[in-house]
Amino acid sequence: MSNNFNLKNYIKFFANKVDDWMRNNLVYSNKHTVGLLESMRYSLFAGGKRLRPVLIYSSYGIFESYFDKVTPFAAAVEMLHTYSLIHDDLPAMDDDDLRRGKPTNHIMFGEATAILAGDALLTHAFQVMLDKDLNPDIPENIMIEAAFKLAKHAGFEGMVGGQYADINNEGKPIDEETLSFIHIHKTAKLLSYCCELGAILGFGDETDKKRLHNFGEKIGLAFQIVDDILDITSTTEQLGKNAKSDEKNSKATYPQIFGLDESKKKAKKLIDEAIEEISVYDKAAFPLIEIAKYIIERTN
Amino acid sequence: MSNNFNLKNYIKFFANKVDDWMRNNLVYSNKHTVGLLESMRYSLFAGGKRLRPVLIYSSYGIFESYFDKVTPFAAAVEMLHTYSLIHDDLPAMDDDDLRRGKPTNHIMFGEATAILAGDALLTHAFQVMLDKDLNPDIPENIMIEAAFKLAKHAGFEGMVGGQYADINNEGKPIDEETLSFIHIHKTAKLLSYCCELGAILGFGDETDKKRLHNFGEKIGLAFQIVDDILDITSTTEQLGKNAKSDEKNSKATYPQIFGLDESKKKAKKLIDEAIEEISVYDKAAFPLIEIAKYIIERTN
Repeated sequence: MSNNFNLKNYIKFFANKVDDWMRNNLVYSNKHTVGLLESMRYSLFAGGKRLRPVLIYSSYGIFESYFDKVTPFAAAVEMLHTYSLIHDDLPAMDDDDLRRGKPTNHIMFGEATAILAGDALLTHAFQVMLDKDLNPDIPENIMIEAAFKLAKHAGFEGMVGGQYADINNEGKPIDEETLSFIHIHKTAKLLSYCCELGAILGFGDETDKKRLHNFGEKIGLAFQIVDDILDITSTTEQLGKNAKSDEKNSKATYPQIFGLDESKKKAKKLIDEAIEEISVYDKAAFPLIEIAKYIIERTN
Repeated sequence: MSNNFNLKNYIKFFANKVDDWMRNNLVYSNKHTVGLLESMRYSLFAGGKRLRPVLIYSSYGIFESYFDKVTPFAAAVEMLHTYSLIHDDLPAMDDDDLRRGKPTNHIMFGEATAILAGDALLTHAFQVMLDKDLNPDIPENIMIEAAFKLAKHAGFEGMVGGQYADINNEGKPIDEETLSFIHIHKTAKLLSYCCELGAILGFGDETDKKRLHNFGEKIGLAFQIVDDILDITSTTEQLGKNAKSDEKNSKATYPQIFGLDESKKKAKKLIDEAIEEISVYDKAAFPLIEIAKYIIERTN
């Protein structure tokens, strides 16, 4: 497998799967809300890497291979992720005007619509996961576990809590524990959920869920450390979003606390530990391992 | 029953039930997010009338009377309603600084925290409904139906869609159909959901759900028409929020299109129709009927 494996094509295959589904599912429902749907779709199809869907599919692939069964769940998580980006970019939050090389949602549609598009995408994520017509092959207990854990990882105990701590600590000197809280909650919670979700949908046992959750949390933290590094070492053109934005927003980062070299070492160590977590799955975990490696090698 | 029935005490009884539960459930979880929880709790306990919980309990009471079973669902809906108020009041939306006689969330905690508090309350509503530990007596299919329909009524096909249409039509001349779309989606969708939810949790059949849904939609539309009327005829002190805010935001209202008298007649007709919808339940629907009457008699 490893000789012929091409990560780029692999990601593209699953990204297309989820994109096709979202394009067909999220349609203009009413003449009064055309602009709202337009705004939701703008950010949803603004060129995201689909890392979260690909993690879900890859984790699920360890257990089963009915990938179409997973697609609405992968789409739901991507919708939720997109809502978080739209709200994070708002003037009252990170005040970013560029995302994936394009104007952010509120620049295109105005703040009010951007807030509502985020609200609607968040709400729709739950609607999609809990829709029995869209998910005829998902047992009820699995559906509930998937949606409940999404809320837990995305709400005030998870992602939103991390975003709050991030905003709330802007301009303040912070310690490693606080920075780690922010990164784990803001980014790693949702990524660990994605990996666990694959095990949930694939009927893995509690040990499987725990392993994949840990894998996701470690690559999530590494992902965020790399983000901090790239924010310093890259240009706006390379990133597709404004470089040096952490400095602009007076945000504490790993490189600031530990320096560049030590930060790179920490990211590398986390990736090694993550891969170790899932080594028991041997070849079945191959795509996940390749994704983990890609996370520290990426340049944008 | 009717001779001894006191609507105020009845509402207070159920409002206390849901308030007690929310106070115990929504607790400070982590030192890094104390301010976020504080902001969520501020708006949650800012003196709301608990109309939505009371509708859920009252509708459920037609079928069963294990009211404690319903409480987490009533709390979840109140959390979702509170999120919608926080986001509606934001400067980019209705820009209101007063709600229930108190400063709005963003005035107290800043815009960023207000946006996140709303996001967290919305997410937590789903978490509460889907939590098996909190809801040991709710069958899985009922849990899914309740949470799925909440998303459908609250998202872009429901409440958020209505809010978008409202904002998007500010300052424009609009026709009755558009105004009706806004009112139905912005307000009546969630109220009709509340009434249907009572039937869902009480194991009502599809006819029961439809009847109570229709009842809720009609009182919801009447509620919004009365809101429009009160916005014109009341003072800020009476309302606990800024009076004449529709005019300030150049919003079309029923009185503006139909005049005050005709608007009052329309509200009265909707309440009569709503009561007719549930007349089949006879005495069991008595609290709902009293609530319907209260909606057009209220002064704030």
